[in-house]
Amino acid sequence: MSPTITAFKSSPDRGRGLARDMRVRWALEEVGQPYDVRLVSFTEMKEPAHLALHPFGQIPTYEDGDLALFESGAIVFQIAERHAGLLPDDANARARAVTWMFAALSTVEPPIMDLQIAKLVERDKTWSEQRLPLVEDRIRARLGELSNRLGDADWLDGAFSAGDLMMVSVLQRLGGSGLVDEYPNLSAYIARAEARPAYKRAFDAQYAVFLAASSG
Amino acid sequence: MSPTITAFKSSPDRGRGLARDMRVRWALEEVGQPYDVRLVSFTEMKEPAHLALHPFGQIPTYEDGDLALFESGAIVFQIAERHAGLLPDDANARARAVTWMFAALSTVEPPIMDLQIAKLVERDKTWSEQRLPLVEDRIRARLGELSNRLGDADWLDGAFSAGDLMMVSVLQRLGGSGLVDEYPNLSAYIARAEARPAYKRAFDAQYAVFLAASSG
Repeated sequence: MSPTITAFKSSPDRGRGLARDMRVRWALEEVGQPYDVRLVSFTEMKEPAHLALHPFGQIPTYEDGDLALFESGAIVFQIAERHAGLLPDDANARARAVTWMFAALSTVEPPIMDLQIAKLVERDKTWSEQRLPLVEDRIRARLGELSNRLGDADWLDGAFSAGDLMMVSVLQRLGGSGLVDEYPNLSAYIARAEARPAYKRAFDAQYAVFLAASSG
Repeated sequence: MSPTITAFKSSPDRGRGLARDMRVRWALEEVGQPYDVRLVSFTEMKEPAHLALHPFGQIPTYEDGDLALFESGAIVFQIAERHAGLLPDDANARARAVTWMFAALSTVEPPIMDLQIAKLVERDKTWSEQRLPLVEDRIRARLGELSNRLGDADWLDGAFSAGDLMMVSVLQRLGGSGLVDEYPNLSAYIARAEARPAYKRAFDAQYAVFLAASSG
């Protein structure tokens, strides 16, 4: 039995691959694990059946036999632990790859999400325009540090890992803001990840959902 | 050799146990692993020697032999993986505990950090007072969902785990805001965690650093 993940029936990003199911699709493609997708509407996400799977009423979720998980970070980790291809064999290198997963989600993503909130949720507020530069500078601080650490390496620590997968997914959320473009090595890092066949397969799969929903 | 962690030489929370080294101290106490602490100043945190350990110039870090990690989530996970006491033996229960670690850090902590930014970094801004209720409501949404899931259970999924340790550490950052008090089962959950002997030992150890710094 293939695992089943959930994704937006109608993704707010219009198929640009920024919804969090993309991370899980990408991880599954990297390890060559087929999967099924169940699409959920915004209404369904807040209903008891989905809340039983995901207490915060979001996507993605992951069901594999009698195991049910939520949180893209935890799901990607589960996939990486169960299949070869996303975590190094060496114990120390593996711990460092896991560290980058947490860094992506706990340190780099929060200011980026704050920008999305500022631009979307608080767009019409009186403070929106004045506050935006502060939020952007908090992102720049993180991007500068990340750029310094990456240097001219291809990936964050040796071979491509679940840490890179998660970091790239987080950085992609800045697309269109111009912020990543200020750090050429980060732009190249994202491009390198997006060129991976597994990424492309995952992207196409989520884009097909958008196309089908648009024509429906 | 005991592992060495880093902590603030002078913690901005004045020994209230809210700095992120507390999570690591607590995890080490839960599994009964002695540890050494190296204190770093705010200046030292942004210097090359520390940046080599922690690319984002923060605490805590974790050094154990030739392994060096950063990110409290990754460090707590490393401790939980290497020692008994913080993750269930059953593979599925273990994956769910890891899920709660990610949920604490990726879903619950970001709006709470946003409140800290709003109250500290943006306190003097013209929008501060008007914006605060929006930030608080985003936290309430998460707390309500978390409260619903916890119900009248002692811990999030069976026995106390690294997931609870991380979630409680995140919720504690709301201390003084009154927000957690709106959810009595969450208040009781935090109190239950704080009553653990390992928590108390970790708290006392970080408080001793504050006391020493104050009298110095």
